[in-house]
Amino acid sequence: MSLVEPITIRFGIVGCAEIARKVSRAINLAPNAQIAAVASRSPEKAGAFAKANNVPAEAKIYGSYEPLLDDPDIDILHLPLPTSLHLKWATLAAQKKKHVLLEKPVAVTVAELDQILAACEANGVQFMDGTMWVHHPRTAKMREFLDDKRRFGELRTIQSCFTFAAPESFLKDDIRVKPDLDSLGALGDAGWYGVRAILWAADYHLPKTVVATPGSVTSDRGVILACGASLHWEDGKSATFHCSFLTHLTMFLTAIGTQGTLQLNDFIIPFQEHEASFSTSSRAGFDDQVTRWEPGPRQEVAGIDGVPQEVRLIEEMARLVGEIKVGGAGKVDREWGARSRKTQQVLNAVKESIEKGFVPVEIA
Amino acid sequence: MSLVEPITIRFGIVGCAEIARKVSRAINLAPNAQIAAVASRSPEKAGAFAKANNVPAEAKIYGSYEPLLDDPDIDILHLPLPTSLHLKWATLAAQKKKHVLLEKPVAVTVAELDQILAACEANGVQFMDGTMWVHHPRTAKMREFLDDKRRFGELRTIQSCFTFAAPESFLKDDIRVKPDLDSLGALGDAGWYGVRAILWAADYHLPKTVVATPGSVTSDRGVILACGASLHWEDGKSATFHCSFLTHLTMFLTAIGTQGTLQLNDFIIPFQEHEASFSTSSRAGFDDQVTRWEPGPRQEVAGIDGVPQEVRLIEEMARLVGEIKVGGAGKVDREWGARSRKTQQVLNAVKESIEKGFVPVEIA
Repeated sequence: MSLVEPITIRFGIVGCAEIARKVSRAINLAPNAQIAAVASRSPEKAGAFAKANNVPAEAKIYGSYEPLLDDPDIDILHLPLPTSLHLKWATLAAQKKKHVLLEKPVAVTVAELDQILAACEANGVQFMDGTMWVHHPRTAKMREFLDDKRRFGELRTIQSCFTFAAPESFLKDDIRVKPDLDSLGALGDAGWYGVRAILWAADYHLPKTVVATPGSVTSDRGVILACGASLHWEDGKSATFHCSFLTHLTMFLTAIGTQGTLQLNDFIIPFQEHEASFSTSSRAGFDDQVTRWEPGPRQEVAGIDGVPQEVRLIEEMARLVGEIKVGGAGKVDREWGARSRKTQQVLNAVKESIEKGFVPVEIA
Repeated sequence: MSLVEPITIRFGIVGCAEIARKVSRAINLAPNAQIAAVASRSPEKAGAFAKANNVPAEAKIYGSYEPLLDDPDIDILHLPLPTSLHLKWATLAAQKKKHVLLEKPVAVTVAELDQILAACEANGVQFMDGTMWVHHPRTAKMREFLDDKRRFGELRTIQSCFTFAAPESFLKDDIRVKPDLDSLGALGDAGWYGVRAILWAADYHLPKTVVATPGSVTSDRGVILACGASLHWEDGKSATFHCSFLTHLTMFLTAIGTQGTLQLNDFIIPFQEHEASFSTSSRAGFDDQVTRWEPGPRQEVAGIDGVPQEVRLIEEMARLVGEIKVGGAGKVDREWGARSRKTQQVLNAVKESIEKGFVPVEIA
């Protein structure tokens, strides 16, 4: 719980990407946040975005990014820019003492991310990436299950998948398939979620080795369109994930322990917004004749109390920034940056493994 | 549909393994089958099994296997023996003109299976392996979905998993962890189902290459306790599976096409016996704000009309044998042997890949 009175934290949106629409709605819905400015590469574009997304009339409209970064009335910048631009703009934002909400993948390389995180650290600003599902109340409930030694035991293996069939126009023109804008392609976009889910399940312990699965698909421009990998921990734990722009919308997360299993098929975007569920199974076996499960799995439901996961992300970011505004840079929560960095480390190792011909790559 | 009047086909059970209990119940329940004999390594053991499993009083009880194989009143032999004994007994059974219902894994190597299949072919007897789930009405309904170009599109990737936490006693003494009895271990037992499910989804088209996933676990006696692999087809399709004796009971099958997705978490043994379900999703996306699925997946239910999957296996085997008894060896359905063989080919390739250090292995 916050020790300070809730104050309204002012967000600036840098660039009007598709995801910014969802984040704008979330800022509008969060009680401790407001959209105070929108910047795009032209004032018309920024104005049209503001109008279409219920941005408050008093919000400032900028026709370029720089003046927004210089605006002293802005606390947090949401940066939904192409990945290759993150280094420049996130670093600059931190230098301008703006807290940074950065879309995923957070950088092209770990080295780039390290520069961003160093800038945030040096300037006492909060960093958080835009992964929304980790803020859903369901995620906390799933965490309780995984932490329950009696019901789940020790984590042994995790499988994850996120694919969607991108339309022709996406495969031709989307920033996520352009090598100069987002060379990680499906690995950085869809794969981010699978890797993040695996690390989340593994309590953010990094694997020792990563091996890409043969058969990854790379576009003629050198951007990954589909791939997968297995991850291996020193204690024998393992995980696999698959991601793709080329097959039908599918997601799943399965975490298996010595005593229990967690399964769900909508971990990133829940099937319904108002509530979400997941399946747990503990100490399951079969009946005497092996004709049915005993006990069967149970479906556990988590409501959102009217607050969708992306609103919770905004609330949490605004809460942290509120604490920092009152308590100073000592209140910065470095865990969020550390989680982003581990995700990025695994993504980069997978890319290296693909490039080297699906060989094992050690994680430093 | 059968062209001949249903006749009662007589089963002999060779060995009283755990799985024989389930098969005995199925034979008792199948309208066109009956248990006509039980053989074990002692008459006491065979008698006790018969008593405990409602074997009809008129069934013969044998204290060794050979006389059952010579019994002219038996049509089909169910062979739930340790895998390393399959070659000897299945070949002998065929030579004695007995139709062969062989438990999985059907052999230690493809070469052994080929000898078994050759013996069946030479003697005009039907071969079928004991995989039960493929006979569930749900499987036919799932097949319709996968074959539906509009709802599912083209198959692109499959993921499968079957694990269970074997108790200490199993890991010490079960035939499935003894190198002389079943050197394939978890790969042959749990992995059989994952591989079979993948091949089923791929319409039994064999992959070109198989690569075992690093991190497989082998017992100090050299038996596989946990492993996984990826499978790769020439057309770019891919699949992964994981199997283990060391983690909690879990199973799933996900098949993803260009237009749709099939998912279920109980494909081998349904959660409930009387009906089973699976999830399908077609041309799914998200709502405008990307906060929920549109359309969401649907749960499709398949009842069993009172006939469990293992009873359907027995019925189908008895039906085929009935046709052969009337119509001769020309009526033998070789598809069942071909499916077993493909499964065995993949299993053996995975084992070879593990033994060679997780290198790609081509499937001949």
